[in-house]
Amino acid sequence: MNLLLLSNSRSPDGGYLTHAGAAIGEIAAGRKTAVFVPYAGVTIGWDDYTQRVVDVFAPLGIAVTSVHQASDPQAAVRQAEIIVVGGGNTFNLLKCCREAGLLPLIAARVRAGAAYIGWSAGANLAGPTIRTTNDMPIVDPGGFDALGLVSFQLNPHFTNALPAGHQGETREQRLAEFLVANPSAKVVGLPEGDWLRVRDAQVHLHGPWPASIFVGGQAVRSVDSPARLDPL
Amino acid sequence: MNLLLLSNSRSPDGGYLTHAGAAIGEIAAGRKTAVFVPYAGVTIGWDDYTQRVVDVFAPLGIAVTSVHQASDPQAAVRQAEIIVVGGGNTFNLLKCCREAGLLPLIAARVRAGAAYIGWSAGANLAGPTIRTTNDMPIVDPGGFDALGLVSFQLNPHFTNALPAGHQGETREQRLAEFLVANPSAKVVGLPEGDWLRVRDAQVHLHGPWPASIFVGGQAVRSVDSPARLDPL
Repeated sequence: MNLLLLSNSRSPDGGYLTHAGAAIGEIAAGRKTAVFVPYAGVTIGWDDYTQRVVDVFAPLGIAVTSVHQASDPQAAVRQAEIIVVGGGNTFNLLKCCREAGLLPLIAARVRAGAAYIGWSAGANLAGPTIRTTNDMPIVDPGGFDALGLVSFQLNPHFTNALPAGHQGETREQRLAEFLVANPSAKVVGLPEGDWLRVRDAQVHLHGPWPASIFVGGQAVRSVDSPARLDPL
Repeated sequence: MNLLLLSNSRSPDGGYLTHAGAAIGEIAAGRKTAVFVPYAGVTIGWDDYTQRVVDVFAPLGIAVTSVHQASDPQAAVRQAEIIVVGGGNTFNLLKCCREAGLLPLIAARVRAGAAYIGWSAGANLAGPTIRTTNDMPIVDPGGFDALGLVSFQLNPHFTNALPAGHQGETREQRLAEFLVANPSAKVVGLPEGDWLRVRDAQVHLHGPWPASIFVGGQAVRSVDSPARLDPL
């Protein structure tokens, strides 16, 4: 398997995925076409979202088409060389993928060799479940199970900071709750700007910041980047 | 109906529910017993959580027992004078209430005249659904529908601030997404320290800060406290 899981899309320079260009080129490895899944977009129209992604991938020599514009979205996934899943709302993403019958097809296609590139909600989707998303549950996805392309959970946009004076739970407190309810799970807290490169069982951390590893019954572990994370 | 819906439990002085003492006394109106639902607690044991609430209500002359210690939780709810639902994780709260068969019983008992006091997750539970919770979906609650004691959604711990430099969605962006997916819904964003007092169709805002009202297709409306919010 061949995955690129990014915490977020916005680069420190304000550009869209510009921090990820080299990593996208590396995983693409000469593939010339990609299929985009825009379903996490809620306040952005899927046509506009697709155009934004087309504009990022075109200079890399990769032509992007979206499942929402395909006459047969399932066939588009079955033939995809690269599957690209964008961020937005994870619940909307999972609901729409489920309703379109794409979940088992995406998983099968990636297991058969297609590359998978996801950011934010699209990174969440690669895990066993979406139970460590930060998003608001604006729609019922009909169950929380996701693609299960990796054995660990992702928490994108990881930070432990709170707005000054705010009493809501910190991210570490939320993930501690997750581990109490799911004691055998493992979570990678991926700060903005970082990404994981997964090659079969190998998991490499990249980007400027340390990641935080959460395992039930253990203290949170900070790992400087770059690093090999497996076995978690 | 007779509801007290608090944004949060921690008072500015660091005390537990101390900011809510007068409001609890007012809604209790001489009732001497209350039944507590501790199911939102995940990293706090339910015995400890119950003791914390017992200690808050005892000086007000109200004896608290918890459904998790009752030999027949359903009977406890059916006979409750006051139902108290504490904060924590909203998904865990809804899941446990559903599994214990308490959702229709709580709703019926409150519609029949029992007082309802909830904070944070317990305030979320009073709305039509939990789709505007801030919590992480650490367990699958088996559907997002909640008590429906009020017609609007609650967003407790409301703030639009983000940690410095963070790119995740603001709360207003999250609630805008919710309204795109649920265009006929209305949401009260309740900042920490504030609460709603609901008497049948009347909804009064109390506490030190303005609340934010979200209605699909309209700009966010800030309402100074105190104020009557109905009709939303």
